[in-house]
Amino acid sequence: MNKNQVKVGLLGFGTVGTGVVRIIEGHQEDLFKQTNVEIKVGKILVNDINKERSIPVDPEVLTTSPEDILRNPDIDIVIEVMGGINQAKDYILEALEHGKHVVTANKDLMAIHGAQIIAKAAEKGCDVFYEASVAGGIPIIRSLVEGLSSDRIHKIIGIVNGTTNYILTKMSQEGAQYDEVLKEAQALGYAESDPTSDVEGLDAARKMAILGTLGFKVDCSLDDVDVRGMSKVTAEDIAYGKKLGYEIKLLGIAKRDQESIEVSVQPTMIHQSHPLASVNGVFNAVYVYGEAVGETMFYGPGAGELPTATAVTSDLVTVVKNMTLGVSGRGMFAPYREKFLKTPEQIESKFFLRLLVSDQPGVLAQITSMLANHEISIEQISQQLDHERREAEIVLISHMATKKAMDQILEELLTVDSVKEIKSYYRVEGREEN
Amino acid sequence: MNKNQVKVGLLGFGTVGTGVVRIIEGHQEDLFKQTNVEIKVGKILVNDINKERSIPVDPEVLTTSPEDILRNPDIDIVIEVMGGINQAKDYILEALEHGKHVVTANKDLMAIHGAQIIAKAAEKGCDVFYEASVAGGIPIIRSLVEGLSSDRIHKIIGIVNGTTNYILTKMSQEGAQYDEVLKEAQALGYAESDPTSDVEGLDAARKMAILGTLGFKVDCSLDDVDVRGMSKVTAEDIAYGKKLGYEIKLLGIAKRDQESIEVSVQPTMIHQSHPLASVNGVFNAVYVYGEAVGETMFYGPGAGELPTATAVTSDLVTVVKNMTLGVSGRGMFAPYREKFLKTPEQIESKFFLRLLVSDQPGVLAQITSMLANHEISIEQISQQLDHERREAEIVLISHMATKKAMDQILEELLTVDSVKEIKSYYRVEGREEN
Repeated sequence: MNKNQVKVGLLGFGTVGTGVVRIIEGHQEDLFKQTNVEIKVGKILVNDINKERSIPVDPEVLTTSPEDILRNPDIDIVIEVMGGINQAKDYILEALEHGKHVVTANKDLMAIHGAQIIAKAAEKGCDVFYEASVAGGIPIIRSLVEGLSSDRIHKIIGIVNGTTNYILTKMSQEGAQYDEVLKEAQALGYAESDPTSDVEGLDAARKMAILGTLGFKVDCSLDDVDVRGMSKVTAEDIAYGKKLGYEIKLLGIAKRDQESIEVSVQPTMIHQSHPLASVNGVFNAVYVYGEAVGETMFYGPGAGELPTATAVTSDLVTVVKNMTLGVSGRGMFAPYREKFLKTPEQIESKFFLRLLVSDQPGVLAQITSMLANHEISIEQISQQLDHERREAEIVLISHMATKKAMDQILEELLTVDSVKEIKSYYRVEGREEN
Repeated sequence: MNKNQVKVGLLGFGTVGTGVVRIIEGHQEDLFKQTNVEIKVGKILVNDINKERSIPVDPEVLTTSPEDILRNPDIDIVIEVMGGINQAKDYILEALEHGKHVVTANKDLMAIHGAQIIAKAAEKGCDVFYEASVAGGIPIIRSLVEGLSSDRIHKIIGIVNGTTNYILTKMSQEGAQYDEVLKEAQALGYAESDPTSDVEGLDAARKMAILGTLGFKVDCSLDDVDVRGMSKVTAEDIAYGKKLGYEIKLLGIAKRDQESIEVSVQPTMIHQSHPLASVNGVFNAVYVYGEAVGETMFYGPGAGELPTATAVTSDLVTVVKNMTLGVSGRGMFAPYREKFLKTPEQIESKFFLRLLVSDQPGVLAQITSMLANHEISIEQISQQLDHERREAEIVLISHMATKKAMDQILEELLTVDSVKEIKSYYRVEGREEN
């Protein structure tokens, strides 16, 4: 194919869609120099043609009918920036059916229906790219698929949700509690009025499913991700962490050994010497440990109109280059490794545990021997007495232990009379050596 | 082309070459899955066939004759990991002349003869890739050329030399002086016995020439880089920086505005809130500020056998894919923007200045009025008296000032009787807002 113009159809014209149009129109010359092709916005699917827009747009370009894009022979490439799952999926499959290449920023969709969409694209010889679906401002997908292609990736740890990282950073810097900071984040537009998907870790889990698939070459789906949110993290836990040299971050952790993988999202104590510990505010970062390359980290804005639009437009440039080269749909990534998920007996990490116990003789001995029974040894432990209330707080960090042993300990502790409350527990991560 | 096997010839078999062979042989299955082609090491150019090697290698594969690779019709791809400039250049040009694709890790060569090599490759329809030439463990070249392709990059700041970052980190953490830490670094193998190329900033300058070319799409060569080494940095300067909230790092800085560019390497005070300030030890990092994407940073090992070998082998995978797709030499990057270098009148930054003056009335006033005459205003200033020695130390950080004004001030200060010594001066960088 040697067109000198390609036409793009946008599904959705919210902030990201607006950003994409802004970049395509503002960078015409640069895009032409890179592709030798003129890239034009042909049609934009909107709900309301008469709504006021923040950028001028030819009314002829707007449409409320998806067919004007999906079945329009003039449209070569469809950019999906409408969000949601089912309708977006139907539209993308229809676009592919009609031989259109697709760029999407939709992590929810790719985490759940990615395999189906990629299979349809392969069948039709079309490109599907989705760099913007994970950490918009960070070219992490390209890095995993290309830059680190010759390496064997053992571990991917990501701060892949800006809202929760903003909240945890503020809590850490100001000693503030979760509820208070959440309200502030909502007022500033960093958190949605219903923050569930962010704070309960679902958004991060979707991104980790995508990163796990690409990094480990297995078909990793949202169901494979063990998720725990960060809404129960307290200012006290953060203060305890700091004293021991740790920050609490909502981490997505994907690990692989020779046989099997584990993928999870949970609030984690990460040692201050780890480069992820100083990733603050709404920034995202993805840390990758490869067998040969060792430690690398990619840092940048995780969301936002322009960063996400940049990722979408960079994918668009790749699609256009592939069209010119006649290699569309041939560079697609397909997982080729069989998936074995680690069982709780196989998942290992250090952990942090904070307990409120009654101040009686022998309590500490009782708890440490419970841990020993599960073959959990202790790296550090401290006990602080409150004589007046006849209570003590026990804080400990374990050596490596299995998730199964940890889960069992948490259950058993509930049956011990002298244990008044399990205040908190966290996974603990350091640098690669631990 | 649809071969099911490609043969690689290596020029050089030192640590990086060994790493490349290790990865190609160790990851056969993964590489095949990604490319559908079997990648074989056909020939390796060495100085001494009988030398003992750290990995087993068929003696038939070794050769001392470059023609066995450069003119061998069985060899499809040449990997240059021998280093040096002139001979490497001749070999690469000859390989391209014979239609072989090239992967090189040679920054010295690419910084100086990159344009010529790329032109020859384009003429012959061959690929040339050189990801490993800048910060081996960081896929920064791909990120600039592809991931951020739709954005307009305004600024690239890099810690691109691990040796000097190791030395400055140690000086900062231990309050030690340069000479002492250099010796330690040499003993550990982090610095060469002749450390000039590292500590005087030449190595970093070569990498910045490559990054400037790719980021700004202009043909930026080593001569365009203004270089100042870090061997004069003292423990006292680092301590002063810390008090003011800064770390001293050897930074490569490439900036661009609408008309022109500046590229430099110098020891710089960088504010602790900047993500580069906490990049420690032998690690490298490249910070990129793009118009749309905002701040991103890429972090990882800058050198080392396996990180560099990973970058080389990932380039090799791309070459093999391009051969299969029949698009070799077509995705090459060529600068398309005319180059205008900023003059010293146009280069602006804050700077730090530390002076030893005699303790006389009016000295401070004299110096501040000299600065005012050059339209340099002062952000913060402090004076510390040593009554016994009748001296005072003046430390200041300026607001934005031109390099020209700064150079003139440094000259003028030498003519002022009350100024006993210009102890030090540094460029000062913060986050994007300043």
